[in-house]
Amino acid sequence: MAMDIRTSNLTTPVTVAEYLFTRLHQIGIRSAKLKWVGSVNELNAAYAADGYARIKGIGALITTFGIGELSALNGVAGAYSEHIPLVHIVGCPSTISQRNGMLLHHTLGNGDFHVFTNMSASISCEQAKLLNPAEIASQIDHALKECWVKSRPVYLWLPTDMVEKKVEGERLKTPVDLVEPKNDPEREDYVVDVVLKYLHAAKNPIILVDACAIRHRVLGEVQDLIDKTEIPVFVTPMGKGAFNESSPNYGGVYAGSGSHPDVAALVEGSDLVLSIGSLKSDFNTSGFSYRTSQLNTIDFHSTHCQVRYSEYPGVKMRGVLRKIADRVDVLKLSKSPMAKVENQVAQNMDDSKTITQAWFWPRLGEYLREGDIVVTETGTPNFGIWETKFPPGVTGVTQVFWGSIGWAVGAAQGAALGARDAAQDKRTILFVGDGSFQLTAQEVSTMIRHGLRVTVFLINNDGFTIERWIHGMDEAYNDISMWNYTAIPAAFGASEKQASSFVIKTKEELEKLLTDKTFNEAKGLQFVEVFMPREDAPRGLKITTEISARNIARTE
Amino acid sequence: MAMDIRTSNLTTPVTVAEYLFTRLHQIGIRSAKLKWVGSVNELNAAYAADGYARIKGIGALITTFGIGELSALNGVAGAYSEHIPLVHIVGCPSTISQRNGMLLHHTLGNGDFHVFTNMSASISCEQAKLLNPAEIASQIDHALKECWVKSRPVYLWLPTDMVEKKVEGERLKTPVDLVEPKNDPEREDYVVDVVLKYLHAAKNPIILVDACAIRHRVLGEVQDLIDKTEIPVFVTPMGKGAFNESSPNYGGVYAGSGSHPDVAALVEGSDLVLSIGSLKSDFNTSGFSYRTSQLNTIDFHSTHCQVRYSEYPGVKMRGVLRKIADRVDVLKLSKSPMAKVENQVAQNMDDSKTITQAWFWPRLGEYLREGDIVVTETGTPNFGIWETKFPPGVTGVTQVFWGSIGWAVGAAQGAALGARDAAQDKRTILFVGDGSFQLTAQEVSTMIRHGLRVTVFLINNDGFTIERWIHGMDEAYNDISMWNYTAIPAAFGASEKQASSFVIKTKEELEKLLTDKTFNEAKGLQFVEVFMPREDAPRGLKITTEISARNIARTE
Ligand SMILES: Cc1ncc(C[n+]2csc(CCOP(=O)(O)OP(=O)(O)O)c2C)c(N)n1
Ligand SMILES: Cc1ncc(C[n+]2csc(CCOP(=O)(O)OP(=O)(O)O)c2C)c(N)n1
Ligand SMILES: [Mg+2]
Ligand SMILES: [Mg+2]
Repeated sequence: MAMDIRTSNLTTPVTVAEYLFTRLHQIGIRSAKLKWVGSVNELNAAYAADGYARIKGIGALITTFGIGELSALNGVAGAYSEHIPLVHIVGCPSTISQRNGMLLHHTLGNGDFHVFTNMSASISCEQAKLLNPAEIASQIDHALKECWVKSRPVYLWLPTDMVEKKVEGERLKTPVDLVEPKNDPEREDYVVDVVLKYLHAAKNPIILVDACAIRHRVLGEVQDLIDKTEIPVFVTPMGKGAFNESSPNYGGVYAGSGSHPDVAALVEGSDLVLSIGSLKSDFNTSGFSYRTSQLNTIDFHSTHCQVRYSEYPGVKMRGVLRKIADRVDVLKLSKSPMAKVENQVAQNMDDSKTITQAWFWPRLGEYLREGDIVVTETGTPNFGIWETKFPPGVTGVTQVFWGSIGWAVGAAQGAALGARDAAQDKRTILFVGDGSFQLTAQEVSTMIRHGLRVTVFLINNDGFTIERWIHGMDEAYNDISMWNYTAIPAAFGASEKQASSFVIKTKEELEKLLTDKTFNEAKGLQFVEVFMPREDAPRGLKITTEISARNIARTE
Repeated sequence: MAMDIRTSNLTTPVTVAEYLFTRLHQIGIRSAKLKWVGSVNELNAAYAADGYARIKGIGALITTFGIGELSALNGVAGAYSEHIPLVHIVGCPSTISQRNGMLLHHTLGNGDFHVFTNMSASISCEQAKLLNPAEIASQIDHALKECWVKSRPVYLWLPTDMVEKKVEGERLKTPVDLVEPKNDPEREDYVVDVVLKYLHAAKNPIILVDACAIRHRVLGEVQDLIDKTEIPVFVTPMGKGAFNESSPNYGGVYAGSGSHPDVAALVEGSDLVLSIGSLKSDFNTSGFSYRTSQLNTIDFHSTHCQVRYSEYPGVKMRGVLRKIADRVDVLKLSKSPMAKVENQVAQNMDDSKTITQAWFWPRLGEYLREGDIVVTETGTPNFGIWETKFPPGVTGVTQVFWGSIGWAVGAAQGAALGARDAAQDKRTILFVGDGSFQLTAQEVSTMIRHGLRVTVFLINNDGFTIERWIHGMDEAYNDISMWNYTAIPAAFGASEKQASSFVIKTKEELEKLLTDKTFNEAKGLQFVEVFMPREDAPRGLKITTEISARNIARTE
């Protein structure tokens, strides 16, 4: 057989499956080789792989042809939109069945086996159909490189009859090349000179760190630049967690008109904004309400830079930032003093027992501790968290741009697993609305199954509060069923040892819980249902929805 | 404003929203105008709309741009694959935001607002972007006709700023034309003559009713043909429920080698198979194991007919079947005697207390009663149900071809709602595996919310038994978490009055339950967890997986 002839040419034959899993393991996806995670459904699996990637650098999920891959599409699209490196492996019918156009289950009945792959084309930066053993190893290596460097999903299509075909195992001795191509040095130097000219001339420069600084992994470069220059640093909602909020250089969250007035004054009063990895979506900018001028802005992106209106296509931020950090002349820099950022707990205290959004989020800032992973869901949590000052080393995980609800439950599962695989003994803390939780509730069962260390704060405000603020405060379509949330872990099979549940209705109860020693140790799953008023929303959410409504009225 | 000028030309201006919902209501989607169902997530909503359509004729779901529509894709693809008329309405950003290419949430960040619509193109038979008020009413009417006539999903894209635009309400006085175009009479007569020639000459003709006979609504024509001719009738797994199984003409389920030997003998021994609406997928034919000859077969399809090897493109079955029923000469027909179909309960009884698959399914046949809606899930239920003889008027609901697990939970919710909207006081009875149930468990909450009359039989066999038979009897990837299933309704908020739960471990316990009066009345939600052995599978499943394995071995 032809196969044998080919195999005999290989120095160290390994199966395609082994090759692929070894490669995934090498680039950091530990669960791939070690164990089967088995999320409860494919959308949850995609969300979990996304969360895993946000902690561990890259994630992977395997689904079945048709039914499985389509169920995962929204999760993969979210990873694409949010610049998350995700390897989506799809197991498909054998090349022979495909050639024969067989009427297999999970098809549309038209003999077209490529239709689902085509649906993934616009949400992956590379698609590889693994159809020929002679090419598979290099296809895999190339796709993994694209995934990492572009920080976006790739799609691998693996027919059943290719899984055990042999490929060259010798290749595995050399790690996949994940190095991002360097900038052309002359162009890079040119941009660096321009930036330095403006930076040295600026009176009160600031740095604004956004999502793509995290996703395209330039936080090291940014940190070095700040350590050297001590320029004031602000983060956007999607950039939250990218910078040590205990640093004296930290100025707070900037989101246009949604910002605290003192933050807005500092950012909008700056004569030079170094904007790093910006992603100026509506919810990341309180409805496009920045009042910074492009004439005062330098943008650093993963694909290009822009100084005022001059564009530098192909000049990627990493090399530029590194050289700026190296070459900046500290003596030439001016700086203005900064206000201190604090958790405004006392200021938001009132006499009632009711837990308000205004009081809750700052209070959490004092509960969080170094190293925590904080996952927040679309809804009140994604806006409330602006008011929470993170201790050093806290990782913020949100999906502000794509904003698919239910994501956070899966993502928290994946993040906790990622932390464990990275041998980090961290608490993963999830804040999720009741409405969002219902979409993907069963992923709690995967947390239980793997004994993950997750503390869930479920905000029970009787429905879709964010949607009430956007449209229809009292409309039935913003109502949801009232679940018995704290019964959920037990229904999903958790023993009393595996999970503990808490119902919290007053400030006092929350205080007690947040200061409880065992609770703070956070072993295993802890499920906290926190009641908040139905129409109460964080400041940032109210402002953003108000501005959005105004935008809509203007255009219609 | 231009809008006002246009509006003033309308005799009875109504908003686009009102027009659309009125049309949906007119064609039978009652829940559209009357209430908001609010499935717990979009995939479940698509499954529910699919189940609704299977009872009520047509279904609809509304999702949000991007996140919502992509979550629903697998459900819509299933409807496409299985020929279910489904109206998928997607609410999208205003035409103005689109024109401005704004960086809105739920986008990929590339200013392309059409990318998700394109992903739906291959799983809908019509896509209409409702962008111009002057065209919207006719776009809607045309899409609804396509949906109905082709019995496949259509996609309607509705920007926020079009929702309240005015269209002509006078049109609503005339119902949408849903009439399928007639066949060319000369061609039709030609095919009818050919068919009658073979039918009159045949010694032992039979009729085999399959999925598309149901989906393309020719059961009336088939029934008339049988009433007149008394030809023996068999159904495929996907055709189950299409014919009265108490009729003396009923011969059983034919699925190639997976059939009972006496059924196989009759079908395969027939010298003329009138095959109506066949969909010969692997799982519908026990791995393509028919032993009928095309020389003995006449195929009736929604788009064409085929007599032996002669094809008649464009000659649709409805008209042909009607004329055959009218013109067949009963005196010229030969018929052979039929074996009687019975629930083989006694034959499958054994001494142990354990509930076996072999005993369970025939036993159910005696529990079911006239008018029940029986929903079965991919897994052991879809094969077990072959052994259940339905009382008259039972509707079988399965997704054998697309086979997306979790579907049945959503579909049961939709089916029960469909029955209620049709003012039919029917029991909806769901059979679902533990593995499948976990994917979409939260849809039980929607059943509770609307007080639907659903009895759930959850088969707890500790994992993916069907997958164990296909590949890896003891592999970890076929294991699932053990949930506390009967605690689920209460966790999802059901009061004791709203739901009752039962744990059934022995034949005796099941006997008692199935003969209990209150249980048989089936008010509200009843949740029955039935334990069966981990490696036990229905006959049909064992045979099908064995044949499939042999097929795979042959081709690889
Ligand atoms: C998959 C998906 N479906 C629908 C939406 C629209 N949506 C955005 S936020 C939201 C409500 C969230 O409610 P909840 O989680 O309770 O948050 P809160 O009440 O705290 O605002 C909905 C339905 C979405 N973003 N994603
Ligand atoms: C959405 C989706 N994901 C995965 C599969 C693959 N699959 C088919 S059947 C099955 C297991 C079903 O298990 P269960 O419901 O427990 O049935 P049983 O044990 O009775 O066979 C799986 C995982 C599928 N068909 N659909
Ligand atoms: Mg809520
Ligand atoms: Mg099972």
